[in-house]
Amino acid sequence: MLQHSSSLDLAFQALADPARRAMVERLCEGPASVSELAQPFGMSLSAIVQHIAVLEGAGLVRSQKTGRVRTCQVEPAALRAVEKWISDRRLLWERRLDRLGEYLKDNPDMPTAPKDKEQTHD
Amino acid sequence: MLQHSSSLDLAFQALADPARRAMVERLCEGPASVSELAQPFGMSLSAIVQHIAVLEGAGLVRSQKTGRVRTCQVEPAALRAVEKWISDRRLLWERRLDRLGEYLKDNPDMPTAPKDKEQTHD
Repeated sequence: MLQHSSSLDLAFQALADPARRAMVERLCEGPASVSELAQPFGMSLSAIVQHIAVLEGAGLVRSQKTGRVRTCQVEPAALRAVEKWISDRRLLWERRLDRLGEYLKDNPDMPTAPKDKEQTHD
Repeated sequence: MLQHSSSLDLAFQALADPARRAMVERLCEGPASVSELAQPFGMSLSAIVQHIAVLEGAGLVRSQKTGRVRTCQVEPAALRAVEKWISDRRLLWERRLDRLGEYLKDNPDMPTAPKDKEQTHD
């Protein structure tokens, strides 16, 4: 569980940077060499290599060197773990809204649900 | 677009912390006061307040003070924006796998797709 939390920490952290998100976006369309990844960003190769290292550290990308060319590809499992965390939260949230909706249907004169009111008190 | 990127930066950054993710998880079940949020973490109120400030700054949570009690609730729009970014990437990835699958079906003797092979060269 701690391990899982830590992977999610690294994945969210890696995706907090717009250049790294754009690199993941590019790699979701297919593998690319480091210089192909660098091209659209007008960034130095060393900056790109640092971003790739962060993405690899978070398990979102893996790379392989063949001769002088390093090719990167996305690791969909890590993306799926992030997506699952978010969609599980959405399900929780939607279930709560459903319960609230049912309560309000059964109690049409109640302006807000009592649970929310109770929770404003310490 | 820059504004949108910046919101995503802040949302991913805020969710990179396991305590903040647990707080979002709790708030997806319903609003909670600051001390209700603090309880399961064995954290000081001031640490919790700092985490709430990060979540509010990222638009993931909003809070309201009534008398002496501050009540927090989740802002589902920001969670949805994060979920959308991830699921859009998954769609890209799946479309690519579909195309690869079709290609391999049409070319059963080809061990790997030619596009990937081309991209290993700079």
